[in-house]
Amino acid sequence: MVSLLDAERRKSQVSARELAYVLHQSKSNVEKLEYLENLLVQDPLFNHETMNYLTRGEQYKRATQMAGRAEIIAHRNNLSEEDTALLHVVLQTFTSCPSSTALHTGMFFKNLGLLFTDDQQSKWMAMAKQWRMVGCYAQTELGHGSNVRGLETTATYIPATDEFEIHSPTLTSMKWWPGALARTANFAVVYARLLLHGKDYGVHNFMVQLRDLETHEPMRGVKLGDVGPKIGFNNVDNGYCKFHQVRIPREQMGMRVSMVTREGKYVKNSGVPQEVLYFTMLQTRMTYVRSSGLALGKACTISIRYSAVRKQGYDANNPNSKEELSVLDYQTQQYRLLPLLAAAYAIVLTGNQVDSFSLVLADQIKRGDLSKLQVGHAMSCGLKVLTSDLACNGIETCRRACGGHGYLLSSGLPILLGDILQTVTAEGENFVLSQQTARALLKIHDQFRSGADLPEEMQFMANIGKSRYTQTRDKQQWLGLDTYVEIFQQRFLHLLNNLVSKMSSAPSIAAGIQNNSMLCYKLANAYTYVVLVNNFVASVRSSTALLPVLQPLCQLFALTQLEANAGEFMESGCVFPNEMPIIRANIEELLKLIRPHAVTLVDGFNFSDHLLNSTLGRYDGNVYEALYESAQHDPLNHSSDKVALHELLLPIRDEISKSKSRL
Amino acid sequence: MVSLLDAERRKSQVSARELAYVLHQSKSNVEKLEYLENLLVQDPLFNHETMNYLTRGEQYKRATQMAGRAEIIAHRNNLSEEDTALLHVVLQTFTSCPSSTALHTGMFFKNLGLLFTDDQQSKWMAMAKQWRMVGCYAQTELGHGSNVRGLETTATYIPATDEFEIHSPTLTSMKWWPGALARTANFAVVYARLLLHGKDYGVHNFMVQLRDLETHEPMRGVKLGDVGPKIGFNNVDNGYCKFHQVRIPREQMGMRVSMVTREGKYVKNSGVPQEVLYFTMLQTRMTYVRSSGLALGKACTISIRYSAVRKQGYDANNPNSKEELSVLDYQTQQYRLLPLLAAAYAIVLTGNQVDSFSLVLADQIKRGDLSKLQVGHAMSCGLKVLTSDLACNGIETCRRACGGHGYLLSSGLPILLGDILQTVTAEGENFVLSQQTARALLKIHDQFRSGADLPEEMQFMANIGKSRYTQTRDKQQWLGLDTYVEIFQQRFLHLLNNLVSKMSSAPSIAAGIQNNSMLCYKLANAYTYVVLVNNFVASVRSSTALLPVLQPLCQLFALTQLEANAGEFMESGCVFPNEMPIIRANIEELLKLIRPHAVTLVDGFNFSDHLLNSTLGRYDGNVYEALYESAQHDPLNHSSDKVALHELLLPIRDEISKSKSRL
Repeated sequence: MVSLLDAERRKSQVSARELAYVLHQSKSNVEKLEYLENLLVQDPLFNHETMNYLTRGEQYKRATQMAGRAEIIAHRNNLSEEDTALLHVVLQTFTSCPSSTALHTGMFFKNLGLLFTDDQQSKWMAMAKQWRMVGCYAQTELGHGSNVRGLETTATYIPATDEFEIHSPTLTSMKWWPGALARTANFAVVYARLLLHGKDYGVHNFMVQLRDLETHEPMRGVKLGDVGPKIGFNNVDNGYCKFHQVRIPREQMGMRVSMVTREGKYVKNSGVPQEVLYFTMLQTRMTYVRSSGLALGKACTISIRYSAVRKQGYDANNPNSKEELSVLDYQTQQYRLLPLLAAAYAIVLTGNQVDSFSLVLADQIKRGDLSKLQVGHAMSCGLKVLTSDLACNGIETCRRACGGHGYLLSSGLPILLGDILQTVTAEGENFVLSQQTARALLKIHDQFRSGADLPEEMQFMANIGKSRYTQTRDKQQWLGLDTYVEIFQQRFLHLLNNLVSKMSSAPSIAAGIQNNSMLCYKLANAYTYVVLVNNFVASVRSSTALLPVLQPLCQLFALTQLEANAGEFMESGCVFPNEMPIIRANIEELLKLIRPHAVTLVDGFNFSDHLLNSTLGRYDGNVYEALYESAQHDPLNHSSDKVALHELLLPIRDEISKSKSRL
Repeated sequence: MVSLLDAERRKSQVSARELAYVLHQSKSNVEKLEYLENLLVQDPLFNHETMNYLTRGEQYKRATQMAGRAEIIAHRNNLSEEDTALLHVVLQTFTSCPSSTALHTGMFFKNLGLLFTDDQQSKWMAMAKQWRMVGCYAQTELGHGSNVRGLETTATYIPATDEFEIHSPTLTSMKWWPGALARTANFAVVYARLLLHGKDYGVHNFMVQLRDLETHEPMRGVKLGDVGPKIGFNNVDNGYCKFHQVRIPREQMGMRVSMVTREGKYVKNSGVPQEVLYFTMLQTRMTYVRSSGLALGKACTISIRYSAVRKQGYDANNPNSKEELSVLDYQTQQYRLLPLLAAAYAIVLTGNQVDSFSLVLADQIKRGDLSKLQVGHAMSCGLKVLTSDLACNGIETCRRACGGHGYLLSSGLPILLGDILQTVTAEGENFVLSQQTARALLKIHDQFRSGADLPEEMQFMANIGKSRYTQTRDKQQWLGLDTYVEIFQQRFLHLLNNLVSKMSSAPSIAAGIQNNSMLCYKLANAYTYVVLVNNFVASVRSSTALLPVLQPLCQLFALTQLEANAGEFMESGCVFPNEMPIIRANIEELLKLIRPHAVTLVDGFNFSDHLLNSTLGRYDGNVYEALYESAQHDPLNHSSDKVALHELLLPIRDEISKSKSRL
C-alpha cells in the first residue's frame, strides 16, 4: 500500500531533488551536505532518541561531547578547514543541537581575524584551531545590552607592569549572557572601557584568559557562573562573569584598529577603518538570513507533512464520503501554512544572495573599500529584523497548526522555536536594530539629494515623491511579478517620504529617529520586503524547469504579505480598497494550485528524519506510531511511584477522617 | 532614596487600589482574594524559589502536594464550598502552578452535574468532594481531536451481564492528552461510541474507573501513561489510556440526556435538551476570557515595571544628559506594551460581564430555556478564540520587549506563556472553533431575515447592508467612543454581508462554511471585537473617578486594534486611507498621555510578588539583584565537574597528538 505521503508525492510532477539544488545552490553542495551529515549520523553518539528527556546539565554534556566528536571525525576523515567548519554548521542544524562551540568555530575565529593584528593572530589562531584555546565573545552586561557605549567593565592601563587591569566595578557591569562563558570557554574577547591615565577612551576589546588551560579552573579574580534556565538553548552555557582586578599583558588588547603603546599612548591605526570593529556583527547578522529561512522550512516540513497525514472532519462538499479529509485540504490550514512555505523559499533564496554579498563585502573591507558598507549595513540589519520575525512567528504558526500534538516536544516544533527564538533579540534587538536601517537609508537618501549617485541596489529610491500608478489593476495584473516589485517599492518610498518630511523639523538626525521610531521600524521592514520580493522575483525568473511551482510560490508570498499589511499599501496609494476582493481571489486560487505540490515543495529542503527529529514530520508519515513510541522513552512511564495517592489523596482523606473523629 | 518604581507611582494621581476594585469587581472580592492567597503563602510549601530548577517529575510532585495542602488548608479554615473552589482557582493563578487537580475541582464536578442523573450524582458527588474519587475528562484520542464524531473508542452493551465493554480498537483510538489521566485520576468520564446490538448510536459518556481506590494500581485492561514533555504545563500529567475490553456496570453511562435500559433499548430523556452535553465546554470557554485577560495583565505588569526600571541609551532630545533613558520612554516600547495593557483591561472587564452571563445561561438551561443559547454559543466561541490569541501573542510580545532577560525562566514570562499557550488549541482549536461562531451568526441572521426579532445583544445586526458614514472624521471624532462602537460594527456587518452572499451559492451551510472558512474566521473575530469594544466602552462610561485613565485606555485599545487591521476597515468603507495619519497622531498622543500612569495601571491588577514569581516584575524594581540571586539557585552553579575539559578539549587534543605521533 502506498503511504499517504507517497500518494501526496505522486500528485506533483516536480522533482524535489531539483528544488534542493536550487535551495542549496548546487548539486555538489547538496551532496557535500549529505556526505557530512552522514559522517555524523553513523556515530551512535548522534542518536537523539532520548534527547527530550535529558536534564539541562545532561543536554549540555551531550552537546559538548558531540562537538568534540565532530572535530575528531573531521580529523580522521582529513576534512579541509572549510569542510570542518561546514561539518560544525551541519551539526548546528540538527534540531536542538546548537551548542556553545559554534561561538568558537564561528564568531571567535572571525573576531580573531578582524580585531587582532597579524602578530596577535599568529600567536592564538593555531591554539584556537587545536582547541587548546576555546573562546567566547563577552560584550553584553547584566545592565547593558543595546547601548554598547554604556558598558561599564573597565580596562585600566597599569604602566608600572605594562598590563591592563580588567575589572567589573558594579553589579550591573557583570558580563551576563555570553554563550560558552559559564563552563566552556577558557578565553574571552572582553568589551571594556579603555582607561589611560584616568581618561576614558570608550569601549575596546581585550583578550582575557578565563580558565587555566590544563585544569580548566577559573583564573584568579574571575568569577564564572551560568545565568540559569531559559527558553531553548539548553546546550549553550550562557554565562556570567565578574572580574576582580584581573591583570592581562598590554599585548592582549585587540590592536588592529587602535593600540596602546608601552608609554600608555593611544594610537589609531589609520590604515584600518573603524567599521572593522562592527563587521563581525554585520557578518553574523547576514548568516541569520539563511538559517532563519531554513528553520522556517523545517517547521513547514513538519507541519505540512503532518497536515497531509492528519485526517479530521468530513467533506461537506461530498456528504456521502465516510473518509475524513486531510487537514491540509481545509482552506484555513492552507492559508496558515502555504504562505509560510512561500516565505521560507523567499528567505532561503535571499539568504543565498546575501551570503555571496557578505563575501564580497568582507573582501572589499579588507582592501579598505567601504563603498558598499552603507547598503550592506541597511540590508544586514533590515534582513535580520524581518527574517527573524517572519521565521519565529511562522514557526509558532506551524506549531499551532499541528493542534495538540504540536505542543509535544517530540513534535520537534517547540525545540525548533527555542533554537531560533533568540534571533529576534540577539545581535541587535529587532526594534533597536531597525533604527539603524532607517538611519542608513536616510543617509543614502541625503547623499542622493546632494547629488551623489544611488548605489546599484538602491536605484529605485530615485522615484521618491513621484506618484505612479493611479488605476485599479485587474486579476491578471495582480499576478504579474513586475506589479509586486513596483508596489513594494512604492509602499517603501511613501514611508521614506514621510520620514524625510518628519526629519526636516527634528533638531538632529538622532532625535528625529528617536521621536519617530515606530515609523523607522515600519520603514525598515518595508525596505526589507523590497529586498525579499526583488530577490524572489529574480530567482523565479532565472529558474526554468521549476517555474511552474516557483512562480506561484512567489505570487503567493507577495500577495499574502501585501494582504497582511494592506492598510499601509492603501495609504501609500498603490492598492485601492476595492482591489482586495481580486487579490484575495488570486490568493485562494494560488493556494489550490500549490496544494498538490506542498509535500514535494517541503521535501525540496532536503531535511533528513535525523535532522528534523520530529514525530510529526517523518518522511514516511507514520506519526501515530512515532508519538506513542516517543512517549515510551519518558522516565515518568518507567516509575511506579504513586505520587497522587501519597501526596494528594491520602493526606486529604486523613485530614477529613481526623476532623470527623474530632467531632 | 525613592526607588525608580515608586517615583513612577508618584507620577500618577490615580489609585491603584480603586483600579483593582474595578478589575476584580468589588472591594470585598479583592479582599477575599488577598485573604485566600495569604492562607496559601503562609505555608512554606508554596515557596517557589527553586521551582525553575525542578525536573518534570519533581514539578508534578510539588503541584500535587500543593493541591492537597490547599484542600487541607480550606478544611482547617472552615472555608465554604464556594471559597474552597476559589482557593483552588487562586492556586492556579500562581505562575506555573496550574495543576491536574483543577480538572477535578473544575471540569469534573461540572460534568458530574450536567451529564449524570440525580441518582448517579448522589452516588459520586460526595466521593469526589472527599477526594476518594478523582476524575478527568477523557475525550480526545491520538487520532481524533476537533471532530468528536470521529472518535473510535467503543462502549458495547453486553446484555448477558448488564455491562458496557469499553474498548480501544486501534492505535489512533487511544485516549491521548486528557489532563490528570496519566498519574492522578482514578476515574474518567470517557467519550465513546455507544454500540447496541451492533448498531452505532454515536458518542456518549461513560464513567470508567481507571485505578483501584486503595492501591492506585490501574484496573485490569487499563493501560495508562504520560504523553511526554510538552510546552509548559509540567505540573499536569496529560496522559494516554488504552482500554482492553474493560467492563463497567450499565448504570455508569451518563444517563441524564439519554439512557440504555436493561433490555438494551436506547431512550432519550425528552425533558433534557441535547445541548446540555456540550454546555460544560461552553462554560469552560467562558472562564478562559477572564483568565486570558489576567495572564496578559501579568505579562504587562512584568514588562512595564521592568521597562520603567531598565535604563538603556541616551536621550537625543537632551544631548547633554549623561543619564540613560528608561526603556519605557521610547516610542517603540510604548507602542509594543501600552496597547497590550489596554487589551488586558478590555479582556478582563469583558470577562467580568461574561462570567455573570454564564451564570444566567446555566440557570436558564437548567430550566429548559434555550433562548440565549445561540448568542451564548457565538460569544463563548468568539471570545475564546480572540482573547486567547490576543493574550498568547501579547505575552510573547511582552517577553520580547524585555530583551535578553525575557528569555530567562526567572523572568516569569516563558512559564507564564507556557501556562496559557494551550488555550489557543484546547477546548476547540481556534480556527475550527471560529467556524462555530460564524455558523451561529449566520443562523441568527437567517432568523432575522425570516422575520424573527434579533436578540438584545445583536440589535446592531439590523444595519446589515446599509451603508452609513461616508465622510472623513476629524481628530476629535476619532477620539469619540461612539465612533469606535460604530466602526467595529460596520466592519463586522461588511464581512457578514460578504459571507451571506457567498452562502447563497453554496450547496449547504456546512459546505459554504467549509469553502469560505478563512472569511468565517475573520468574521468571528470581527464580531468578537464588537463585543470587546462595546463592553469596554460601557465599562468606561460607568466609571467616574477612573475615567481619566480608563477612557484613554479604551481609545488606545480601539485605535490600535483598528490600525492592526486597517485594511479590513478601509475595505468595509468606514475608514479612509487618508484618515490614517490622524488616527496615528491620536495613538501617539494617547501613548504619551498614558505613559505616566503605566506603572499604576499595572499595579491595579493587584498581583503580589509571590503570584508573579518574576525577577523582572518585582514591586520594588530591584531586578538585577533578583536576576543574580535567582541564578545562584541553579544546580549547575554548584557542581564543579569540568565537562568541557573532559568531553571536548582533552579528547580533541588526544586525537591531534595521536595523529601527530603517527606521522
